[in-house]
Amino acid sequence: MEELQISPADPRGSPGKEQQAAGVGILLQIMMLVLSFVLGHVLRRHRFNYLPEASASLLIGLIVGGLANISNTETSIRAWFNFHEEFFFLFLLPPIIFQSGFSLQPKPFFSNFGAIITFAILGTLIASIVTGILVYLGGAMYLMYKLPFVECLMFGALISATDPVTVLSIFQELGTDVNLYALVFGESVLNDAMAISLYRTMSLVRSNTDSGQNFFMIIVRFLETFVGSMSAGVGVGFTSALLFKYAGLDIDNLQNLECCLFVLFPYFSYMLAEGLGLSGIVSILFTGIVMKHYSYSNLSDNSQKFVSAFFHLISSLAETFVFIYMGFDIAMEQHSWPAHRQIPPKHQKALWYSGLRGAMAFALALQSVHDLPEGHGQTIFTATTAIVVLTVLLIGGSTGTMLEALQVVGDGRDDSLSEGFEENNGYVAPSYEESSSSGNRFKMKLKEFHKSTTSFTALDRNYLTPFFTTQSGEDDEHDELFHDSRRGNF
Amino acid sequence: MEELQISPADPRGSPGKEQQAAGVGILLQIMMLVLSFVLGHVLRRHRFNYLPEASASLLIGLIVGGLANISNTETSIRAWFNFHEEFFFLFLLPPIIFQSGFSLQPKPFFSNFGAIITFAILGTLIASIVTGILVYLGGAMYLMYKLPFVECLMFGALISATDPVTVLSIFQELGTDVNLYALVFGESVLNDAMAISLYRTMSLVRSNTDSGQNFFMIIVRFLETFVGSMSAGVGVGFTSALLFKYAGLDIDNLQNLECCLFVLFPYFSYMLAEGLGLSGIVSILFTGIVMKHYSYSNLSDNSQKFVSAFFHLISSLAETFVFIYMGFDIAMEQHSWPAHRQIPPKHQKALWYSGLRGAMAFALALQSVHDLPEGHGQTIFTATTAIVVLTVLLIGGSTGTMLEALQVVGDGRDDSLSEGFEENNGYVAPSYEESSSSGNRFKMKLKEFHKSTTSFTALDRNYLTPFFTTQSGEDDEHDELFHDSRRGNF
Repeated sequence: MEELQISPADPRGSPGKEQQAAGVGILLQIMMLVLSFVLGHVLRRHRFNYLPEASASLLIGLIVGGLANISNTETSIRAWFNFHEEFFFLFLLPPIIFQSGFSLQPKPFFSNFGAIITFAILGTLIASIVTGILVYLGGAMYLMYKLPFVECLMFGALISATDPVTVLSIFQELGTDVNLYALVFGESVLNDAMAISLYRTMSLVRSNTDSGQNFFMIIVRFLETFVGSMSAGVGVGFTSALLFKYAGLDIDNLQNLECCLFVLFPYFSYMLAEGLGLSGIVSILFTGIVMKHYSYSNLSDNSQKFVSAFFHLISSLAETFVFIYMGFDIAMEQHSWPAHRQIPPKHQKALWYSGLRGAMAFALALQSVHDLPEGHGQTIFTATTAIVVLTVLLIGGSTGTMLEALQVVGDGRDDSLSEGFEENNGYVAPSYEESSSSGNRFKMKLKEFHKSTTSFTALDRNYLTPFFTTQSGEDDEHDELFHDSRRGNF
Repeated sequence: MEELQISPADPRGSPGKEQQAAGVGILLQIMMLVLSFVLGHVLRRHRFNYLPEASASLLIGLIVGGLANISNTETSIRAWFNFHEEFFFLFLLPPIIFQSGFSLQPKPFFSNFGAIITFAILGTLIASIVTGILVYLGGAMYLMYKLPFVECLMFGALISATDPVTVLSIFQELGTDVNLYALVFGESVLNDAMAISLYRTMSLVRSNTDSGQNFFMIIVRFLETFVGSMSAGVGVGFTSALLFKYAGLDIDNLQNLECCLFVLFPYFSYMLAEGLGLSGIVSILFTGIVMKHYSYSNLSDNSQKFVSAFFHLISSLAETFVFIYMGFDIAMEQHSWPAHRQIPPKHQKALWYSGLRGAMAFALALQSVHDLPEGHGQTIFTATTAIVVLTVLLIGGSTGTMLEALQVVGDGRDDSLSEGFEENNGYVAPSYEESSSSGNRFKMKLKEFHKSTTSFTALDRNYLTPFFTTQSGEDDEHDELFHDSRRGNF
């Protein structure tokens, strides 16, 4: 188990020296984190949208990795800078995914629920299968590295997980329509859940190819993973909502206790799902959505502010670290590059406008290194990392231009997104009387999806919210919106 | 390196199953954490001071460990519940120690600086040497396990690290004099730094017994560790103060960036010292003190509130986890108990009124398992854990009674501590005209120490505070006191 090495110290060997080396490695990582935050801040301040923060982190990783390559110290720096999937899956990924769910604006999300589900489930399914088939055909025609069909589908699934963060930070910067924002964000978030469930299903299919090869079994397995994990996550979320509703911690000036408990629930959900053999990521995502919508409003005001800031902070740190590591890894891993070079330009173009690949694709690729034999996993990992870097650098930089070309950007006001929240108090209703001039064509398309979700909105307002929170469904709406929008800019 | 096992998964083996087992283990730990917080809260609410929170965590660990022992699943639960010193030193200890320094009230601490330094340095030195000699004599007289003299001194050093948390939570609950509080807290905090430096020095002496056996070398080594680590910590703290003073992040509504950077500095300090071969714990402690006194006031108001709550939260979690683990470990480790049983009652009595042993003693004992050969480390570890459990349960429970007997408790008001902060605005001055009726004899004894520290207070007020913060030394005093006292109850 030599691969769990956030610090590669072996205390039985020479504890002092090894611990020292670990210290230097972490020191380097912290310095790169600080540098990334400062650089990202400088870029944002000068409105240099062509290089978003994720790209800055990636570039810093690339540069440090390149420098380490040029100097002859590769092995020692490599040893310092060696986190692996356990550290990643236990400490970095859960906060990133939870924050995706937790930072969802609940009202626009639920009012666009049908559209989001449709895009996420159908879209990801189609994208995964098409990508998988393309990669398989490419391999069969000797255009690129040849993989078995199931492994191609696994690659298709993992590469279909899009990264919402960069694109949404640009959305927020430029100001877009609230519903489009919720749609894109919700889609990316659920898309991650779909992608990991598909990946897991394919992985299971691969390991017993002889027994359950039929199509029906695959669907059952997929539903098992997705629905099981979702239920676990929603269940933990509702439990926490009831706990905070009845424990009465918000009146007692017990902010620390309240926050400690609140912070433990997501991790509990993640580990519960993993313990049950389900997907912790899908589970923690739904816990995030439910906790934001129900538990959150049962907290005291101070705790609400604190936990928002807390999860934002933790996920920023984790995410920046992941991007730095990806850049570093690309610069270091020369030996696998030839395999990547065989991915044809056509494939890259197909990926071009389908979004950014981020932490989730990276996580799944990291896992595939261990799931797949004979270097196939390594190839997938290298290809994925390269695609993540390319899409973050290229698409991340061009998103602003694209949004403007599609006329979905707000009226040039920087804060139109947050103002939109306060103006459009009635926007959860399926009609759009109060919609502003921009983005009309997108809104028209969204309309048709709304009918399917009014029933859920009604269920939520009449039964769930009164049962799980201390508020009635109606009264707090404006209040909550105001809170949310204020926090949106945070 | 099979001992780094917060999750004992080996992804190359059978990832699904092992990751599942890891999930169950962490799940169990999270449930115990939640239980500890809830139990601690219930106890505090019912003013049941005989069982402080740390004891509650210990007991929960003991009970779960005992249950696991009775059932036949010991090995698997043992495997789940297996963190080791890397996880401890990298993730649990730094926040606990930083919080010790960070939650120090700077003004009472600095005005009692001379007294604190004297008690901490001389007191810890004497306690370590006396305990070491007693243990050695006990061993020589076959009353208890025999250890070489240097190892006895190592044990003396590590067992001299007192745990401030439990005793201070009771102080705060009952309300004591501000200066006594600062004295006890400051002493415990610096005492940890002394103990670890002594331990390290003795460890170095042990590893090259032949070369540098003379007394002079020991002192040089000790100063190297202590002064070097302190300088590193203070340096990082001052750097952060200057960064936050001049970066102008507080006016820009960039709370997340501000907090991310603020949170990274302590860890940077810890790893810097470890990378230099010094003591990260001593370094992060002084970084905490300096950052609270200087950097903290350069933050925006929101960030100030957030980082206080953040460090409080993280350290509460880490500390509760450590106490749970200690209880669990005691219940599990039957095979080493005979060694412990040989520690004589006399020794236990000598330790009785010298305070509680907590996380730091435990950390050092954990390290000694690897530093010392032939099971000596294991013996020290078991003895230390037992002493920690005994002192936390017994002394922790009796502290309230003792404080009342010594008449240092406030006038029965629960909030007299915090009110004391606001009433006694002039208490940083060495005279005590405005002192209240309680605790007079202690205050009299403190008086004599104050003369030695007026020079430091003047230096701080006239040069350090204006240079490192955005405030002048005088104006903000009342304001800062008010903030501090409000946060004290948080």
